[in-house]
Amino acid sequence: MSVESITLYACKVELALVEAGAKYTRYEIDMIRKPEWYTKVHPLKKLPAIVYGGPTAPLEDPSPASAKLVESLVLLEFVADLFPALLPADPVSRARARLVMDAIASKLTPVLHDFGFEGDVSLDALFTACEAFQALLPPDGFAVGQWSITDAVVAPFLGRVDAMLRAGQGRYSPENGEKAYKELFQSERFARLQKYWKDLSSRESWKSTFDEKFIIDYQRPFVPTRA
Amino acid sequence: MSVESITLYACKVELALVEAGAKYTRYEIDMIRKPEWYTKVHPLKKLPAIVYGGPTAPLEDPSPASAKLVESLVLLEFVADLFPALLPADPVSRARARLVMDAIASKLTPVLHDFGFEGDVSLDALFTACEAFQALLPPDGFAVGQWSITDAVVAPFLGRVDAMLRAGQGRYSPENGEKAYKELFQSERFARLQKYWKDLSSRESWKSTFDEKFIIDYQRPFVPTRA
Ligand SMILES: [Ca+2]
Repeated sequence: MSVESITLYACKVELALVEAGAKYTRYEIDMIRKPEWYTKVHPLKKLPAIVYGGPTAPLEDPSPASAKLVESLVLLEFVADLFPALLPADPVSRARARLVMDAIASKLTPVLHDFGFEGDVSLDALFTACEAFQALLPPDGFAVGQWSITDAVVAPFLGRVDAMLRAGQGRYSPENGEKAYKELFQSERFARLQKYWKDLSSRESWKSTFDEKFIIDYQRPFVPTRA
Repeated sequence: MSVESITLYACKVELALVEAGAKYTRYEIDMIRKPEWYTKVHPLKKLPAIVYGGPTAPLEDPSPASAKLVESLVLLEFVADLFPALLPADPVSRARARLVMDAIASKLTPVLHDFGFEGDVSLDALFTACEAFQALLPPDGFAVGQWSITDAVVAPFLGRVDAMLRAGQGRYSPENGEKAYKELFQSERFARLQKYWKDLSSRESWKSTFDEKFIIDYQRPFVPTRA
């Protein structure tokens, strides 16, 4: 199975592709002003997407023979089907990986997102959600032991919150931003989460796909930023 | 891998187990008054659940060595990991199966549910959602060709709407109930959906797991019923 012609748009999925050692061509699409031709990838212009298989074709004119896939969790499962090392092998561990993904997507990432971008999440709610996630982590290693697509689901959100808090970017008061950073990234209460985040963010996959300066600058026009 | 000790609670997942030919012990839990001991299966008493592996133990006192799994989509993937015939083999087809599951869970089943149980969905919205699902179906066969866990996601909802409309059960006007039944289950517009539903509901897996009379009677105290 060749993965030469994987084409993708976005961070969670790219993290998985890098961890897998997949060969792919990366394209960035302006999320705000998506180009017209992008309907050839998805009629509703959904992002991220993977264009897979079929003959090599220009980005703006994908081959009708290639599969166009969307929905980040579906894409992550797809990458893990192509590269089985990205999920544990036994069915019970795979189920636990999916349960943790489900908990992250339904309970953690909406809170992290809303704390930063909506400003309608209290410190208490933020800490409670992070504590619940921390409680799911095993004593060592990644979310389900080995690095898996489960970690790809949470990494972009932790990375963004970390970067935004340090840049003073977000719809929270400066005081709450400082408190949130100290608690989440420096206090004893979140020691396990900090170790997890350090392990995740020191991997080559993270360092090669996450561009902190680009993200902070990109968000500057839309999100209040201290400096 | 033995599945002798699978224990489960609910319809989607049971459908998949029957299709797989799995051996399992079935338990029914009162959804309204969940028993106290059920916290041993899930701390928040989530349903459905599968208790898998470990030594045989009484329902009320599951072995700490068994895995306790919840979330119906996670359970369906678990059953498909145990019995690979329940999903296509190639990664692109598996991704399409998951995209259709995602569309069903986010766009179709909430509308079917709310039409029947909340009464706040117009006939137009109901038909539009069903038409969008019908458009995802291939010309023949099941949601992704072969019977798959994708079909298990939609079957209990179609079956319930079919049964409730015939029994005049639901929070819609008698007039709208009649119109909905004629359109969805008898009109040319939904011919493909009707063929799909006929194929699904004539399978042994459906006939042996869906108890129409039980469901209508069970819902009678909560949902307005004509007869
Ligand atoms: Ca899934």
